[in-house]
Formats: sequence, C-alpha cells, structure tokens
Amino acid sequence: MKKILAMDVGGTKIVYSVINENGVLESEIKREYTPKTISELKELFKKIIKEYDEETQGVAIATAGAVNLDNIKVESSTPNMPEGYNQLDFTQLSKKPVFVENDANAAAWAEYKIGAAKGDNNTVTITLGTGVGGGFIINGKLLRGKSGKAGEIGSMKINSRGRICTCGRKDCWESYASGSGLKFTAYETALNDESFKSSVFKDKNPADITTYDIIQGVKDKDEYSIKVFNIWKKDIITGLINIVNIFDTESIIISGGMGEFINVEEAENEVNNEIVVSKVKIKHALSGNYSGMIGAALLAFDKLAV
Amino acid sequence: MKKILAMDVGGTKIVYSVINENGVLESEIKREYTPKTISELKELFKKIIKEYDEETQGVAIATAGAVNLDNIKVESSTPNMPEGYNQLDFTQLSKKPVFVENDANAAAWAEYKIGAAKGDNNTVTITLGTGVGGGFIINGKLLRGKSGKAGEIGSMKINSRGRICTCGRKDCWESYASGSGLKFTAYETALNDESFKSSVFKDKNPADITTYDIIQGVKDKDEYSIKVFNIWKKDIITGLINIVNIFDTESIIISGGMGEFINVEEAENEVNNEIVVSKVKIKHALSGNYSGMIGAALLAFDKLAV
Repeated sequence: MKKILAMDVGGTKIVYSVINENGVLESEIKREYTPKTISELKELFKKIIKEYDEETQGVAIATAGAVNLDNIKVESSTPNMPEGYNQLDFTQLSKKPVFVENDANAAAWAEYKIGAAKGDNNTVTITLGTGVGGGFIINGKLLRGKSGKAGEIGSMKINSRGRICTCGRKDCWESYASGSGLKFTAYETALNDESFKSSVFKDKNPADITTYDIIQGVKDKDEYSIKVFNIWKKDIITGLINIVNIFDTESIIISGGMGEFINVEEAENEVNNEIVVSKVKIKHALSGNYSGMIGAALLAFDKLAV
Repeated sequence: MKKILAMDVGGTKIVYSVINENGVLESEIKREYTPKTISELKELFKKIIKEYDEETQGVAIATAGAVNLDNIKVESSTPNMPEGYNQLDFTQLSKKPVFVENDANAAAWAEYKIGAAKGDNNTVTITLGTGVGGGFIINGKLLRGKSGKAGEIGSMKINSRGRICTCGRKDCWESYASGSGLKFTAYETALNDESFKSSVFKDKNPADITTYDIIQGVKDKDEYSIKVFNIWKKDIITGLINIVNIFDTESIIISGGMGEFINVEEAENEVNNEIVVSKVKIKHALSGNYSGMIGAALLAFDKLAV
C-alpha cells in the first residue's frame, strides 16, 4: 500500500507521521517545536523529509494559513509562523511530490472521507479552538474560492455587540465562538450581570476568569458560569444557522478543543428549529487531533496520484 | 439554432419568451398575471407551452422557491404562489424536456454565462428587491446543497439589533438589506434620530415614508434621508463582506430593483477594505429584468442537451 509523509504545521509545533492510502497512521507520531526563523524551518522540513524518504512516495502538509490553488504555497499572511513562510515553495523541499493544504480544509476532508461526515457530499467541519476555522465540502469537493482563501467563516459578522476581534475588525464570529470568545464573554458577563456577585468566581478579577473556570463552573451548576456558557453557545448556534442556510449541508462536524463542550444533539435541535432549508445533522469529529495530517494525506493521494 | 420556451414565474406575474442557445430573446416578451389556484396555473402553463410547441425544443422555468436536485419540482413552501405549487411535477406539462431552477440561481447563471460575471468561475449574484436573494457559482457550478435549497443568503443573521424579519426570525440580512429593510430603517431612524425633525418628511407619519421618499431625499440632500440610506448601505456591505470571506469570489454582481441605488465602485472599496481574502470586483448585473428566464434557458440547454 502506498504511503506518504504527512505533517501538521502550526505556529507552536509540527506533528508528523506516515499515513497510508486509507488514512491510517503507519508510524509513531512525532513532534517538533516550530522554529522561529524560516531558514531553521526549512532545515527542519528537509531533515524530517529525508528521514522518511525511503518508505514514502510523497509529502502532504496541513498548514496554518490559506494555500494557493496549486497546493504548493501559503498565500495569506501567517502571523504565528516565521517571517517569509508565505514565500516558501514547498515543492523545493523534496524531489518527490509535495502537497499542501490549509489545516481546516484538510480536517474537513478527513471527516468527509473517513470520519463523521463520511458519505455526506455537502458538509462542513467547524473547528472551535483558540480561533474558529471552517472547511467546506460542496458536492464532494473542497471549497477553495478564486485564490484558495475561501472558508474564512470565523470572519463572518453575526451580531452588532461591538466586540473587537483579534483581527482588528468588529463582531467576527470567531471573537464570540472561540475559546477566547468564551473567556471574553465571561469577562463581559462578570461586569454586567448580577449572577457574578454570587458566583464561585466572585473574588476573581473578571479578566482572569478562564475558559476552564467556566467549564468547571457549569459542571458545578454555578449560575454565572451557566449564563456565560449559554451566551457562548447561542453565538455558536447563530453562526451554524447561517452556514446551513447558505450551504444547505447534510452535516456539520464540530471539531477542535472547544468543540467537545458542545452537546451536538442539543445544537442539532436548535439549528433545525431555525433554518429555512432542510434539516441538518450535527456530529462531533471522529478524526480527532490528527485530522489535519490525515486529510492532507488523503487529498495528496487523490491529487498527486502518488 | 436551438430554441427553448423560457418563463419567469413569480407570485404576481409570469413572463415568457423564446430564447436561443446564446441566451438571446427570439420572440416578443409576454406577460400574464399569476392565477390564484394551482389548476388555473397548470392550464395557463399548458396553454403557453402549446403556443410555442412547434418552434421550441423544450421548456425552461425560473421560479420563486427552492427547486429539487432533479430540476423538476419546487421543494420549499412558496407563500406567494397558489397552494399546491410545490406538489406540481413540471415534467407533466410538456412532452418535451422541462427544466426548472430557482430564479435567483438562474439569474446568477445568466450573469456568469453572458453577463457581468462572464469568465468568473467563482461569483455570486445578489438580488436586492422587496426581498434579498442570492445565487452562487462555485468553480463554474451552481451551489445547490443537499436538497437544492442552498443560497438562502437573505436569512443570514448579520447583527443583533432585534429587527423581526418577514420570515418571523430576527435580524436576517433581508430584513435590513431589502427594499422593505430600507423602509423599516427609515421608520426606525425617524423615531430615533434628531435629523428627522428638520427633514422634508417631518410631517409624514414615519410608517408612511417609502423607499422612494428616501431615494428622492438623498438626491435632494436631505440629512435624514442620507442617514437612512447610509445605514441601509452599511447593512448591505456587512453581508457582502461575509459572503466574500466565506466564498472568496472573483465578483459580486448586484441585481434587482433596489440594486441600482448601490454605487458599486464605492461598495467595492468598502468591501475590499475589510475582507480577509483576496480583493473582489463588484458590478451591476447586465442581464437585467430577464436574467431569470435567460439563466434558466442556458441551464436547460446545458443540462437537457435539448
């Protein structure tokens, strides 16, 4: 069976393994910290690629940032990556075929091919983590757009409460639906809602209340925490409703570190009660932490015919 | 050259003509009022189809409502159409091939094939009229979704000002960006903004101020009218920004009766200043009032190979 070296490249670390045509990991999963300069990063890539050269037929990379339509170069600015990352021509790293795809797109592809969205030709995978990402499958193909940057669903404005997003714009879905969004909702609610005064967190500085605090508070039936959590959930639901009304997808797959706190049955009911298109299924992702690598590998097998 | 009978079927009237493979109208454009019952409507369809039977190779219909994936039946509820409209099997109306598509999708297809979006494989046509509709072209194909209902962009929630939409939900883009949205913004602004007191409309009941009043007021440099118009425009821009961030389209085509009041150069600048994807072109539609018929005809020629 054919094998590919697959990597997931983020601002903090690079995770890699050998993956076969079925999307199954065939070697130990290894990790490296992401170097601070582009030359160190290139060297690291080359070292890893050389290590697996004999046993693999190509390289598949899931990366932060938007990827060009040829799947060989990052197109967007990537503030968390070394400077010059979006100048790097990935095909120069190996003599074998190299394929690059945005990590959210790759994760959606993994869910579509072998995960929770298997068989759904119209599906979206939403990653709720520090930020919010999305990968859209339309009629069995990835939505890429004119330049590969499509799917910036975290930038969708969903309300007018005036919250400043990390991107500098106002009211992006990401600024509400992400982990950071939950933290900020906790801060705002502490300042504005009476429930904070009787909360277990009442002695904390509102700016220091963490997402973990709120999750724990919900478990402990703390009224303030439940309020915060419900505002966060409602903001997520609003975005999901927009997505289904626009794309009429068969499924929404919820992924990412914050995604596990979403009750998908409850979310499915709430979304289906408000959409104007046909009903949607909402499920948790199956491919887990390695969905980026797996999806990139599966896409590479398709596109490169390696 | 092959010819098709094309109709645009709405709640008020049915417009029809013969259209050739190039999307050119080949007969006089005729109109009938839409009958109130489904049996009268069927009879009218049959009468029209019979009239053009000899000179055409098929029938193409652009219609209100979402159309199923086989392009032969309306799937959604259509409150403005006779009861039972979504039970009608359009293929029963003629022995020749019959093709049906949603009017907003058909209009987008016309703009893509022979209109302002010609050559743009990723494009969207937004119709600003009494309501707001959208047709999305992705990689040269219409976005249909799992059941044909995709593209319900008017239902996208874009803010949290609490306005009730005609659909009964809150804060849909349509409730702000449509002609009715402009009228409601005029009403709200009259109640809440000082500028109304010195406006040319100050003696009118705020509920009676029309979209026409505001458009005229803007021409006459009435401060209140300009405020209203700018709020309306900003709400439209917010939706367009969301669309480009999600779809990374090459172009947005603005269509519909209210669309002509949008300065597309200005809108293009405002959108491009805020999107996180690559720049987009914004243009007015070229196919005009007959884009639905033309698009349905062109789609039918492709799909039916008539």
